[in-house]
Amino acid sequence: MTVIALMTDFGLKDPYVGMMKAVILSINPNAVITDLTHEVPKYNITLASHMLKISYKYFPKGTIFVVVVDPGVGSRRRPIIVVSKNYLFVGPDNGVLIPAARNDGLLSAYEINVKIAGLKEISYTFHGRDIFAPAAAYLSLGIPPHVLGHKLNTKELVKVSELPEEPLITDDGVELRVVHIDDFGNLILNTSIVELMKSLGVRYGDEVIVKVRDREYKALIVRTFSEVCEGCLAIYEGSFRLAELAKYMGSASMDLDINVNDCIRLRAPR
Amino acid sequence: MTVIALMTDFGLKDPYVGMMKAVILSINPNAVITDLTHEVPKYNITLASHMLKISYKYFPKGTIFVVVVDPGVGSRRRPIIVVSKNYLFVGPDNGVLIPAARNDGLLSAYEINVKIAGLKEISYTFHGRDIFAPAAAYLSLGIPPHVLGHKLNTKELVKVSELPEEPLITDDGVELRVVHIDDFGNLILNTSIVELMKSLGVRYGDEVIVKVRDREYKALIVRTFSEVCEGCLAIYEGSFRLAELAKYMGSASMDLDINVNDCIRLRAPR
Amino acid sequence: MTVIALMTDFGLKDPYVGMMKAVILSINPNAVITDLTHEVPKYNITLASHMLKISYKYFPKGTIFVVVVDPGVGSRRRPIIVVSKNYLFVGPDNGVLIPAARNDGLLSAYEINVKIAGLKEISYTFHGRDIFAPAAAYLSLGIPPHVLGHKLNTKELVKVSELPEEPLITDDGVELRVVHIDDFGNLILNTSIVELMKSLGVRYGDEVIVKVRDREYKALIVRTFSEVCEGCLAIYEGSFRLAELAKYMGSASMDLDINVNDCIRLRAPR
Repeated sequence: MTVIALMTDFGLKDPYVGMMKAVILSINPNAVITDLTHEVPKYNITLASHMLKISYKYFPKGTIFVVVVDPGVGSRRRPIIVVSKNYLFVGPDNGVLIPAARNDGLLSAYEINVKIAGLKEISYTFHGRDIFAPAAAYLSLGIPPHVLGHKLNTKELVKVSELPEEPLITDDGVELRVVHIDDFGNLILNTSIVELMKSLGVRYGDEVIVKVRDREYKALIVRTFSEVCEGCLAIYEGSFRLAELAKYMGSASMDLDINVNDCIRLRAPR
Repeated sequence: MTVIALMTDFGLKDPYVGMMKAVILSINPNAVITDLTHEVPKYNITLASHMLKISYKYFPKGTIFVVVVDPGVGSRRRPIIVVSKNYLFVGPDNGVLIPAARNDGLLSAYEINVKIAGLKEISYTFHGRDIFAPAAAYLSLGIPPHVLGHKLNTKELVKVSELPEEPLITDDGVELRVVHIDDFGNLILNTSIVELMKSLGVRYGDEVIVKVRDREYKALIVRTFSEVCEGCLAIYEGSFRLAELAKYMGSASMDLDINVNDCIRLRAPR
Repeated sequence: MTVIALMTDFGLKDPYVGMMKAVILSINPNAVITDLTHEVPKYNITLASHMLKISYKYFPKGTIFVVVVDPGVGSRRRPIIVVSKNYLFVGPDNGVLIPAARNDGLLSAYEINVKIAGLKEISYTFHGRDIFAPAAAYLSLGIPPHVLGHKLNTKELVKVSELPEEPLITDDGVELRVVHIDDFGNLILNTSIVELMKSLGVRYGDEVIVKVRDREYKALIVRTFSEVCEGCLAIYEGSFRLAELAKYMGSASMDLDINVNDCIRLRAPR
């Protein structure tokens, strides 16, 4: 019984994800289909690749990931299967699969041969349904990747810029970028907590100054929310394995009026 | 192992869909439950029937669809089972099941007899949980429809207006209506790409003029996004099998400030 | 084949729920995972406990519920397993599990012993993934609760204020609170329809006056929407088993401009 895990930027209001699951069940009625998320910010390949990298290892070995964050659908970008030590990844050759596969140990890659794979009725706009879902379903039946496509030189796979980045050190501390705002309004930053603390010369329990535009706030570097009081700002390593700025029992995004890609400056108190 | 596919306008914030799945699993723990979507625009029977019509055939034969877009819940509208060549459909007799069933080959229909079906504790407001989910679960156990209800004359089933419509031809091109905006902000129009091209006298690769209120834009009739440049407007056959107006790597809905039911005029350049 | 039902306030835009499912499938690939909802209003333990209480009994006996509405994550609040007559509940000891378990017949409770349970790599911020999901998965394999933790005195479990409340009777009728607005815009009130009718001295079919701030509306006490005309206000027992104020074929929340926690006054006509 193989798990097929889906991640897309399709959202859930349309029948798109439902159609992908339908195609998989039509090919392999015994596939266990599960969702990572379908609300990846549209076209955000870097964030999608990071979400996959922090999530894949919680899945059973042998899980097949289908990732469709694919602004290039219908162009010449290749549909690929990537084989790593313990997992299989199916999606477009735009870099989205690579950080996870490399983290697990990238072994080989295949361009899905639409003809060999016996796929039919391929639309120009929905390869998630017409190529990636069936390819994953065939893999889940035990058909090996080389039957579904031809081998690629893994060095030629498209790469994507990855998270975490090095913190940008300025005269006055570090400058960070909000790469994602989670459903709690927590601000996920572009660097790791360890790098951040090193750059600022601070430790767990220390206070730092957060500057957003021209306003300044105090935040505590902590391991868990429970170390700060309700309504206080905390910086810690979140589930994205990145430094995260949150308001305990509140929404940092709303309260600080911050959007994705906004800049946040941090410095140690003087 | 039978697939039961659910489509509702319930949304996912409440435990309503979860309760329906619970009821199904209580009756048939081996049912494979999957979701088409639960965010059909509220009470929009025409759009729901179209979503079902474009999606059902991707599911394994024998799939049982439960569709609850049911403004008439608690009234005298009949709860029905519709049998088509390859599928079973369960839902209200308001037309929502018919276009899909007819597309597959409508064979027969039954009014669910709440007493015969052994259903109990039927609320006045939640037939999805109390009638449709259990009826589908019993069907998935192999109980034939005639045991769950009595046969109806299929000619007496309620009909619904269907998509696509004929494009409305005016002195100055065609006038279309936005029937849905998908999660990408793509505008799904009320006609097919073939009819649209015929009406306008244009072909793939041609440019057309899009008029929204008093503003005019250029759009390219294409097979796939990759034929237009980033930020350009494209018209093509989308996954709804209708003509679709989209901004490549952007949101046509936001950029053109268009809502569902708004009017769009198209004409060939002079 | 055991059902594991998940309810959280995580939302679906992040990979958090997907990670929990991954952990469960890694421990028990045969677990049937289903969702109650993941959009419980953030940190709202009372509403979450009510949603669980009105939903649990629709699930097959033996279902294991994992409920993560957990503002105290990372603090000393205990991770617990609650055993009731027919079900198992896993979550934080903040009261969220208790109304459901007590409704079914609370038998015993255990504090999950993180060491005995063989759990590893426990983060400070995501016990849903690192403690509750694995505990539920082990339970689903048949491992009894006492192997995963030590017995608690059920009298010492944290309690939470429960719904329905008694209607607040004033000189001029009753004063109610909106505890939830469902996806249809229906206003779920903090009392039962029976108590409400008793307090107002009205019966099904009677009209009442609804006062929101300084505006007054008429509403009909009904069993089902079909008793009122389109666009009319109805008060009835909804699927939350609470009194509910809705606009037939519309959104009471939008039309009356009402938010959660707002006050609504009801009185019988003079």
